Amino acid sequence: MKKFTSVSDVENLQQIIKKALQIKENPLSEPEKGKGKTIGLVFLNSSLRTRLSSQIAAQNIGLNVLTLNAAQEAWNLEFADGAVMNGDTVEHIKDAIEVLNQYCDIIAVRCFAGMKNKEDDVNESILSQFEQYAKVPVISLESATRHPLQSLADCITITENWKENRKPKVVLTWAPHIKPIAQAVGNSFAEWMQEMDVDFIITNPEGYDLDKNFTKDVKVIHDQNEALKDADFIYVKNWSSFDDYATMPEVKENWMLTNEKLENTNQAKVMHCLPVRRNVELSDEVMDGENSIIYQQAKNRIFSAQAVFSEILDKMNSK
Amino acid sequence: MKKFTSVSDVENLQQIIKKALQIKENPLSEPEKGKGKTIGLVFLNSSLRTRLSSQIAAQNIGLNVLTLNAAQEAWNLEFADGAVMNGDTVEHIKDAIEVLNQYCDIIAVRCFAGMKNKEDDVNESILSQFEQYAKVPVISLESATRHPLQSLADCITITENWKENRKPKVVLTWAPHIKPIAQAVGNSFAEWMQEMDVDFIITNPEGYDLDKNFTKDVKVIHDQNEALKDADFIYVKNWSSFDDYATMPEVKENWMLTNEKLENTNQAKVMHCLPVRRNVELSDEVMDGENSIIYQQAKNRIFSAQAVFSEILDKMNSK
Amino acid sequence: MKKFTSVSDVENLQQIIKKALQIKENPLSEPEKGKGKTIGLVFLNSSLRTRLSSQIAAQNIGLNVLTLNAAQEAWNLEFADGAVMNGDTVEHIKDAIEVLNQYCDIIAVRCFAGMKNKEDDVNESILSQFEQYAKVPVISLESATRHPLQSLADCITITENWKENRKPKVVLTWAPHIKPIAQAVGNSFAEWMQEMDVDFIITNPEGYDLDKNFTKDVKVIHDQNEALKDADFIYVKNWSSFDDYATMPEVKENWMLTNEKLENTNQAKVMHCLPVRRNVELSDEVMDGENSIIYQQAKNRIFSAQAVFSEILDKMNSK
Repeated sequence: MKKFTSVSDVENLQQIIKKALQIKENPLSEPEKGKGKTIGLVFLNSSLRTRLSSQIAAQNIGLNVLTLNAAQEAWNLEFADGAVMNGDTVEHIKDAIEVLNQYCDIIAVRCFAGMKNKEDDVNESILSQFEQYAKVPVISLESATRHPLQSLADCITITENWKENRKPKVVLTWAPHIKPIAQAVGNSFAEWMQEMDVDFIITNPEGYDLDKNFTKDVKVIHDQNEALKDADFIYVKNWSSFDDYATMPEVKENWMLTNEKLENTNQAKVMHCLPVRRNVELSDEVMDGENSIIYQQAKNRIFSAQAVFSEILDKMNSK
Repeated sequence: MKKFTSVSDVENLQQIIKKALQIKENPLSEPEKGKGKTIGLVFLNSSLRTRLSSQIAAQNIGLNVLTLNAAQEAWNLEFADGAVMNGDTVEHIKDAIEVLNQYCDIIAVRCFAGMKNKEDDVNESILSQFEQYAKVPVISLESATRHPLQSLADCITITENWKENRKPKVVLTWAPHIKPIAQAVGNSFAEWMQEMDVDFIITNPEGYDLDKNFTKDVKVIHDQNEALKDADFIYVKNWSSFDDYATMPEVKENWMLTNEKLENTNQAKVMHCLPVRRNVELSDEVMDGENSIIYQQAKNRIFSAQAVFSEILDKMNSK
Repeated sequence: MKKFTSVSDVENLQQIIKKALQIKENPLSEPEKGKGKTIGLVFLNSSLRTRLSSQIAAQNIGLNVLTLNAAQEAWNLEFADGAVMNGDTVEHIKDAIEVLNQYCDIIAVRCFAGMKNKEDDVNESILSQFEQYAKVPVISLESATRHPLQSLADCITITENWKENRKPKVVLTWAPHIKPIAQAVGNSFAEWMQEMDVDFIITNPEGYDLDKNFTKDVKVIHDQNEALKDADFIYVKNWSSFDDYATMPEVKENWMLTNEKLENTNQAKVMHCLPVRRNVELSDEVMDGENSIIYQQAKNRIFSAQAVFSEILDKMNSK
């Protein structure tokens, strides 16, 4: 693996899931693999799980870790190519990346969608610069349109929780929220599920269909109850409108996931990437109930990251 | 030791003080004890000494350290059980703790009193959730009503500085401040002194008596000069009113500790947990004078933390 | 080396440059040198390169690292001696330093010029307190008037890039900016160049002459074109007026470095400490062109720091 910013960077999904599960069995099995190498974790946005799980994964594998809260600890970054920097921005992202090239063997970056300019977000205005200017492997810690370390953890979690001899029905359901947030987790989960051996559908209100570039031919159902029927896994996540970008078209039905809605399912396991707004996206009873595998998902973020770091180090060490 | 949030978690105080002093002699005597284990240091509030001494202690003992400035680096936390999270809070403390359970072998947390709602503070509205939801040992890095790692360091410091064949007289004296701050250090010191072989009294102005649940039968004197007479140790600390919660009843006398006030003492050693407001709580001459053992106290924070980590690891490793 | 706050702390400049270049060849050649010792990196200001390169250098040499963003993570500091601390400041710098003495074997600090009071800045009102109160070696991570780790990296970079049998002509040129910033990098570069075997001149607009205490007898030319003629190295940097302190006297000519201006030079290598305001201080074409050795300079910050840490540890270990 040369970099990790989407599912297309994974050569063999089943193999990396298997590797992650082996790492979970024995997280300290390769304690020297990253020895003498440094990973830079660059946060342009808040992070709990990604921050901690990436650090643990790096430590487990012997990588030195540099964590940078870019906005608070370093300088206000300019992202526009050719900018005359006579305003508030102090350092161009190109220069920051080139400096990280000097200091790091792997660069991991979190750069959320700005939610202001659709084109900027669709084109990954920040991550694309990391991909363009970084001379070392780049790992996404969630970008404008994708969250691949989360999606890999999701695949690991589904694999762990499915032992039957048929494809599970996996439903990605939109959930309510109080402000417009990005489609990254939804897009990414849709992409990865298409690579998994599952029956995958999406349900969301009218006006909330995700970008077709990610969902492709996946069936989208606008009736949540119909969609959830016989589900084996339900992935709960809010996103704002893609078509009328970053808006929140009115939704009349109540899309919050409740125990009542689980009744029509095949005792579906409930997933969420966290953080979750309790009693808005899903009810306390679901969150704290037996169907939730949400914390297990969070734990698997360690092994998702460690499997990716390990494969990237393999590639580097084989040169 | 299963957890460490108050003196009642200590089985044998003299023994842990002895252990801490042995660690001080040779801080790197157990460099592998925490190997492969991770401590999460979660800060909901500012910290200098606690932050650095905990990191050093963890490193000395071979623990991996994850430090999280929760508010700035992660998400705005919700603390109310059952909340409909349609406001400013993004993640429920229950979920954050459950995720920390997945990532950490020990969780240490700093969660000051909010100073707005007496009941919330008295009931340790935040720490109590860590105690309830954490599945790994919890260590307090100062909570609403206690600061046990400080108090243990205080016991270590008094032990180091007392060689006579009689009980020392230890006086906890209130000091002036410019805004209402918590009673945690005062409460905690009072609790721990009751477990030490010392003569302990408290002096504070009328209206500033600490919570009886911590001070119990300890004598409280409202005349500072009388209280300080023949003192061997003076612990200086401000706190706001407990009865008229978080207010600052007017105080007419000058309670700042000065060299003049030390004259009536038995060349008392002066203690303070830091940070201290110079020339408000105590004078420069006291702070910089020969009676101060305040920096020694600060140093002992390392060994206080390391002794606690060590005992908790002993318990974990013996399972 | 007992401390490192200016060029005068270096006994033999050529020798430490040589050492840094050896470290660059093999950064992990002394992995245990700092074992069991702790360096505290205290940031009172933003930092990217200094923060990361110091951490890498410390890790390479086996030092434990404690990083403290003092303002955000700890307490608001008081700097005035004798202050009655009844205002916004919570901890006196003297006390913070004394606590760092208890926790660290080396203290490194970044404390920029306040740019409000000339006397405070000239007298290094903050760094001087570290030098006065620290009982362990102090390293400047850039202070009010100097940036010695940068200057040492600059010397390393010039050495790497000069193979001819004559002294190179090195020109420090002022560059435009949009707000008044400190003279530290300019002062420091001037000091260090006077210790190097180079022909060194400075060019800046009228009203922008640096403090004579740093530039001494170095020739200052107010015509940029004349100064750049036949230059081998050009160091680009803005600073505000020293005479009319922290102001920005009007400048009519365009001082931004462009490829056109490089034509009169001896294919000069271009240097800058970063962060740089593109198309204000220098043009994109210069920054991204073949003459720039700016990222190499950034990389050399690691070896500059590591050489200094190594020499300081040598001194400590020889006691």
